[in-house]
Amino acid sequence: MLRPVPGPAVGRPAGPVAARMRERMERLQPLHRSLTGDGVRESLAVLGESVPLRVRTVPSGARVFDWTVPEEWSVRAAYVADGSGRRVVDVAEHPLHLVGYSTPVRARLGLDELRPHLHSLPEQPDVVPFRTSYYTRDWGFCLRHRDLLALAPGEYDVVVDTTLAPGELTYGEVVVPATGVGPGGRAGQAEVLVTSHVCHPAMANDNLTGLTVAVELAAHVAALPQRRHAYRFLFAPGTLGVLAWLARNPDLVPRVRHALVLTGLGGGGPLVYKQTRHGDRGIDRAVRHVVGRRGGEVRAYSPWGYDERQLNAVGFGVPAGRLTRTPHGEYPEYHTSADDLAFVGDDELVDALEALTEVVDVLEHDAAYTNLAPYGEPQLGPRGLYPATGGRSADEEVMAMLWTLGYSDGATSLLAIAETAGLPFATVRAAAARLAAAGLLAERSR
Amino acid sequence: MLRPVPGPAVGRPAGPVAARMRERMERLQPLHRSLTGDGVRESLAVLGESVPLRVRTVPSGARVFDWTVPEEWSVRAAYVADGSGRRVVDVAEHPLHLVGYSTPVRARLGLDELRPHLHSLPEQPDVVPFRTSYYTRDWGFCLRHRDLLALAPGEYDVVVDTTLAPGELTYGEVVVPATGVGPGGRAGQAEVLVTSHVCHPAMANDNLTGLTVAVELAAHVAALPQRRHAYRFLFAPGTLGVLAWLARNPDLVPRVRHALVLTGLGGGGPLVYKQTRHGDRGIDRAVRHVVGRRGGEVRAYSPWGYDERQLNAVGFGVPAGRLTRTPHGEYPEYHTSADDLAFVGDDELVDALEALTEVVDVLEHDAAYTNLAPYGEPQLGPRGLYPATGGRSADEEVMAMLWTLGYSDGATSLLAIAETAGLPFATVRAAAARLAAAGLLAERSR
Amino acid sequence: MLRPVPGPAVGRPAGPVAARMRERMERLQPLHRSLTGDGVRESLAVLGESVPLRVRTVPSGARVFDWTVPEEWSVRAAYVADGSGRRVVDVAEHPLHLVGYSTPVRARLGLDELRPHLHSLPEQPDVVPFRTSYYTRDWGFCLRHRDLLALAPGEYDVVVDTTLAPGELTYGEVVVPATGVGPGGRAGQAEVLVTSHVCHPAMANDNLTGLTVAVELAAHVAALPQRRHAYRFLFAPGTLGVLAWLARNPDLVPRVRHALVLTGLGGGGPLVYKQTRHGDRGIDRAVRHVVGRRGGEVRAYSPWGYDERQLNAVGFGVPAGRLTRTPHGEYPEYHTSADDLAFVGDDELVDALEALTEVVDVLEHDAAYTNLAPYGEPQLGPRGLYPATGGRSADEEVMAMLWTLGYSDGATSLLAIAETAGLPFATVRAAAARLAAAGLLAERSR
Repeated sequence: MLRPVPGPAVGRPAGPVAARMRERMERLQPLHRSLTGDGVRESLAVLGESVPLRVRTVPSGARVFDWTVPEEWSVRAAYVADGSGRRVVDVAEHPLHLVGYSTPVRARLGLDELRPHLHSLPEQPDVVPFRTSYYTRDWGFCLRHRDLLALAPGEYDVVVDTTLAPGELTYGEVVVPATGVGPGGRAGQAEVLVTSHVCHPAMANDNLTGLTVAVELAAHVAALPQRRHAYRFLFAPGTLGVLAWLARNPDLVPRVRHALVLTGLGGGGPLVYKQTRHGDRGIDRAVRHVVGRRGGEVRAYSPWGYDERQLNAVGFGVPAGRLTRTPHGEYPEYHTSADDLAFVGDDELVDALEALTEVVDVLEHDAAYTNLAPYGEPQLGPRGLYPATGGRSADEEVMAMLWTLGYSDGATSLLAIAETAGLPFATVRAAAARLAAAGLLAERSR
Repeated sequence: MLRPVPGPAVGRPAGPVAARMRERMERLQPLHRSLTGDGVRESLAVLGESVPLRVRTVPSGARVFDWTVPEEWSVRAAYVADGSGRRVVDVAEHPLHLVGYSTPVRARLGLDELRPHLHSLPEQPDVVPFRTSYYTRDWGFCLRHRDLLALAPGEYDVVVDTTLAPGELTYGEVVVPATGVGPGGRAGQAEVLVTSHVCHPAMANDNLTGLTVAVELAAHVAALPQRRHAYRFLFAPGTLGVLAWLARNPDLVPRVRHALVLTGLGGGGPLVYKQTRHGDRGIDRAVRHVVGRRGGEVRAYSPWGYDERQLNAVGFGVPAGRLTRTPHGEYPEYHTSADDLAFVGDDELVDALEALTEVVDVLEHDAAYTNLAPYGEPQLGPRGLYPATGGRSADEEVMAMLWTLGYSDGATSLLAIAETAGLPFATVRAAAARLAAAGLLAERSR
Repeated sequence: MLRPVPGPAVGRPAGPVAARMRERMERLQPLHRSLTGDGVRESLAVLGESVPLRVRTVPSGARVFDWTVPEEWSVRAAYVADGSGRRVVDVAEHPLHLVGYSTPVRARLGLDELRPHLHSLPEQPDVVPFRTSYYTRDWGFCLRHRDLLALAPGEYDVVVDTTLAPGELTYGEVVVPATGVGPGGRAGQAEVLVTSHVCHPAMANDNLTGLTVAVELAAHVAALPQRRHAYRFLFAPGTLGVLAWLARNPDLVPRVRHALVLTGLGGGGPLVYKQTRHGDRGIDRAVRHVVGRRGGEVRAYSPWGYDERQLNAVGFGVPAGRLTRTPHGEYPEYHTSADDLAFVGDDELVDALEALTEVVDVLEHDAAYTNLAPYGEPQLGPRGLYPATGGRSADEEVMAMLWTLGYSDGATSLLAIAETAGLPFATVRAAAARLAAAGLLAERSR
């Protein structure tokens, strides 16, 4: 079971939670993550300090559906030195300086020969871009455009001291089991799957924010007294990591009722929810409600982005939405060295975490109820549920009870009622609880 | 059967109808109505002068679903007098001065003790508010805030000379039967239910307007040569009255195909239709069409308002819409002494009545027809249905025939055709009649 | 089979196609077309020079559903001469001067008697209006309002030297058969029907444009290497012509999967597509996509217009849309002598033809595909389908492949994917072809 955690974020002052999330990001930031390798293992170890994370491995060469797990990549050193021996670009200075999965090189090259291996952003001359070459054997360096322009003609010593050798792909898995709340006290089989990619080096919004928020969310659901769903959190390299989990767990895939990909939760801008491929699944309704009430934005699915495109694939059909703030590619700091710890805000992370706990609340408690006093409006006054003096506008609490009674036909869910009424789910859920306690409402078995 | 009435409103000059509606309101205005009592009985007697109204009673103490019929409330006198004997508030001056269902009191109280029993509107210092305490035994007075502020400290004599004693709840029912127009000349079983609450004292828009318009509508449908539906009008105290009817007539409830609650039809503003809980019933389609073409407004259902919330309850599922002008709570005169006969306009009442007769026309005559010359467009010219010279734009009458022929597939109703064509229902109905007379169209049995 | 034609318009410089379309219109313009007669026969002969057109005839007096084929109308001469013998209006000057189907007259009339037979447009005093009197025996002249005002009182000689005599109604039919592309190489039974009315005299936009574009479209589909559908083009008098085809081909009517009425394609304004009666048929989806991406307009069905109202009639249910530019009655030149060859533009005709070839492309190639590597995203790189260096935005070609893979569940069509993706159908179709060639996708049999 879960080891003790500082406790759920919700209902606690934002300060400690924010500090905890930031401290975790600061420890993760300098680790050299990639698709494989020690950086991923070290990162999983940091995450596992707060939640009972199990490390899973898949050997190099293993087939994962259409893919093959690549060799493991290790970096000892990588730099370019000019004729005077001065290192003009060096991975020791910043992980982004080396193109991910660069093959080993030791050569003296003229600037003309070197140039095709150098990547910069002319329109953002002061930042280092992020590049990888996972599936094509190549090498390269990324540098500030300003520095690239300053390179003098002449000969350069190139050292890429890397290893590509059989090893493994590594990902972390945290499982919070369901509790016995179903009919007969049986634990449900349905799962909620949350994924966050662990392969991006150095950058904070993409994706230290997803990782640190997912850890807090795991702690939150573990602290819930009851859970209708099991919750599974994957901290895995993009694409190949989640595909490996899907390949190894064919029996679990159909149990995933709701899935959510978390990334980019700390930059500016409102929350942005990207719907599942079908756009009408339970996770869509839940997150639309929560994000909509927080002034966030809802977008249609597209087959571009993060692990949602694997989960939503035709062969799996896992209904996976994605929660971010400003999505990838839409802010200038994206995939550059400017996506650093100063770029992400504590308030944004806490707000994202609160939204996610609200989503969990909907997933756990949305249900259809049956009105047990369906012949007209029951008397609320004698049951202590209604203000005594008539003629005044009823307050939101009373209205939530009237909406719930008026629509609880055994088929309409509380979330649907909340949406129709324009009320928060939590208000309608509380009204349903009050009415159920008064014997006016009964939950339909789900 | 119905006794002779002055005849239907439609097609007659607005003057006499408006005068008749106003005269009826003037006679109803001073009667002391409440949930029960003589005021309701006297009001029903006035309404029954124009339509064959039957008075129904339910004894105090009777269970009505979740409710119990309260004791009957009679008021002989009620006032507050100051030390000099001057009555500072007196129900004899205006029915709203006494909180409805106030319990008997005879006491001398200091202003501090009296104060919690006095209700006023600080933001509207010159009007008397309307308050009731039907289900909590209490007493109180309502007065102008200006008068309340003028009360000097000191002792006051309070007299509430009321009786709460076993008696009855009273409501009125008018039934206009269907005529034999169905297949084989049989009268239909389907009913249209119209309700208007009779429990509000003194106020004109809420609800003398609903009562007087409902009476005229009853007279109108009674004068129709044929009726596919029976029409039932209830003049009943809010909530408990309609629930009593529902409780006593379980066999009739499933026959109610369309229901409409009438109130607040005389204030300013456009007609406002509140849809049924489902929002897609026949009454919704009919009233949306009529009110929409008159520039009115359509709103979603909410479980707050008048008797529509009882009728739409999950246990009954009667599709009840509500027609008002500016709805309750949205105009400052609402539930105050400012809602007087000067506040309601004759033109607004006549307009509401006309809209309702159009709704009846849709309910009575909407049907799907089958095109009997379905292979292309039939020749209208030789049948005398078409202008002889081609090349000009056809007028609305011809267009209505073409829309009707073009869509009459035995499933699409005339109202649906009218909506698609953007034409008034009456125009399409007339076109269908002309085409049926020419042998080009036949009504499907409904 | 088809005789050699200059080749399909698409992919060729606009110049020759435009010139060919204009030359055809110039030859058609002076012919005296009407519902019947030599003008129609001569026009069909001109059209038949480019495509293998068969002439069909229906004898006068034949019943066509609710209609009867009228007598054939021939004009030898028609004029009005004043007392001095000067012809003030003469059909020899312009075909529109004589009301279509005018009965023979030879009389001397005072201006007062003559006046009801003269038609002009006071608001457009310099143009001659178009009038017919097909089904009411009458005669009349159309003239410029300016000329009508100049007529002096006095006696006029009226000569209408026409014949109404048993003859025939004539229409042209071009059939381009399907090729064997179905399962087992069988040719499909489904047809695409294109109609364009041939009865309007003198006017260019209405309808020389529809005729000349339809001829080019017929040549285009005939040059396609494969056709899933047969394509049938009708060049027929309005209403009666298409009804005659429907009456004579009861077995073919159910095979018409898509129908399109072409007219008014050369005036200004964007393309305007009028949907079928149901609004959700395959032809609607195809043309909405094409016209929408070209900035055109989509309108709802109405039972007014051209042959679409016969085809969409309840008894046939042929899903017929209509493509025009500014629709009939919405431009001042409509049905007047101002609708001449200068009013129509070459670029507009070529643009309309291109849009129609795109529609044909959708009708021929839209299908649902099944993703053969459905477990996550397949590797595009090793198959040469993907840019080698990651981290950059994928281009439209890659996105089209991802959309196609992501949605190809064996039920979602390429057109639906294109609409969801906001991509042109052609781009998605090309992506599907590339993926199918790589073994990643297979077309479901349709």
